[in-house]
Amino acid sequence: VIVYGRNPVREALRGTRAVSRIWATGSVLRQPWLATAAVSRVDVDTAAAIARRCGSNAHQGICAEVGEFRYADPAELLAGEEPLLVALDQVQDPQNLGAVCRTAESAGAAGVILPARRTAAITAAVCKASAGAVEHLPVARVRNLADWLGMVKRRGLWCYGAAAGAELDYLSVDFSGGVVLVLGSEGNGLRPRVAAACDALVAVPQRGRIESLSVSAAAAVLLFAASKSRA
Amino acid sequence: VIVYGRNPVREALRGTRAVSRIWATGSVLRQPWLATAAVSRVDVDTAAAIARRCGSNAHQGICAEVGEFRYADPAELLAGEEPLLVALDQVQDPQNLGAVCRTAESAGAAGVILPARRTAAITAAVCKASAGAVEHLPVARVRNLADWLGMVKRRGLWCYGAAAGAELDYLSVDFSGGVVLVLGSEGNGLRPRVAAACDALVAVPQRGRIESLSVSAAAAVLLFAASKSRA
Repeated sequence: VIVYGRNPVREALRGTRAVSRIWATGSVLRQPWLATAAVSRVDVDTAAAIARRCGSNAHQGICAEVGEFRYADPAELLAGEEPLLVALDQVQDPQNLGAVCRTAESAGAAGVILPARRTAAITAAVCKASAGAVEHLPVARVRNLADWLGMVKRRGLWCYGAAAGAELDYLSVDFSGGVVLVLGSEGNGLRPRVAAACDALVAVPQRGRIESLSVSAAAAVLLFAASKSRA
Repeated sequence: VIVYGRNPVREALRGTRAVSRIWATGSVLRQPWLATAAVSRVDVDTAAAIARRCGSNAHQGICAEVGEFRYADPAELLAGEEPLLVALDQVQDPQNLGAVCRTAESAGAAGVILPARRTAAITAAVCKASAGAVEHLPVARVRNLADWLGMVKRRGLWCYGAAAGAELDYLSVDFSGGVVLVLGSEGNGLRPRVAAACDALVAVPQRGRIESLSVSAAAAVLLFAASKSRA
């Protein structure tokens, strides 16, 4: 498969996927990080040819042929002690999915859980939106998110669902221990069964006139609040 | 000028810009919030015609003709007591500018300051990315951002620049009082003169392998940290 963009290609080179070929424009080829890359074939190409190859104009002059994205085993995400995890319920927009993965990786989360259906897959667009973070962040899929949350609660993790109207302010939550932050799609929020499977619903208090934070902004606020509890 | 998308049109109707015409698809026209809108002309149109009119496919079946975006006077942003402000240095991506405006409005910021040059303007794409938040959020432009920061510091505001490598952790900062959060463009960060004009540079500590948070995620973390200090 193809990934494109400077950060996605650079992080693929630093990650676990095999990178078999790179195509880049002349000016990108001269960048030092690329000059030292251990790839058997690096070819110079025009921006237009690169755009055709990756089906996007957001390639920043570079794309690469890499191995398929390997989803993690959900059990793997629970292996570490007191993991911080993010579960996304039906987030179908690649930009939002990528942005949340990028922030999760930055905040030190152990991984991201997605329901297998009605969720964006880890496509090249998601890699790009994540700035390549998905190369270092375990992403697992589960058949039924509500059931999975029930299972991890029995294992001692705390599941907090983000809900704009919830009474509980995120600032009064102790995010220490194993934690799953559960966020829904914009517009729809969490499905009722998923919300019911959480230990508590928490809100980021809004002080403005518009309806709600974006899912990526809510994820950033909650992830770094949780990150702080484990500093 | 034209704005498009459900939230941007809805917030324009609730804001200060005159909305002279709306074009929407049949199914969008039947939505209750639009049925009660006080607009002299509301016309049904096809998705393709709406896309042509707004030059984007992200219109969600609706666009509107509205008055020009009115930038605020920078002095107006300083009128309130102990304002929380965001200054963006050379953020040229409409998605990032819109996302920061949305989060700023949600966090209760009094406004956003942009340098007049080398910054995205408040276009329809920015309105869309902000989910209409720019209709309620004063956005002002200044000729020289470093000079403006120097001036507001003399007026008693604290200016904190976000810098990935800064020694000062944002968690140890007291964001009470009048505060300007200064964020740079992705990739380039703050220009040296802008960084030097800040009282302090603060970092959101990174726990992952990728280089840095997105500007919109960093803005979300810092804005809600500052919002908390004034709860």
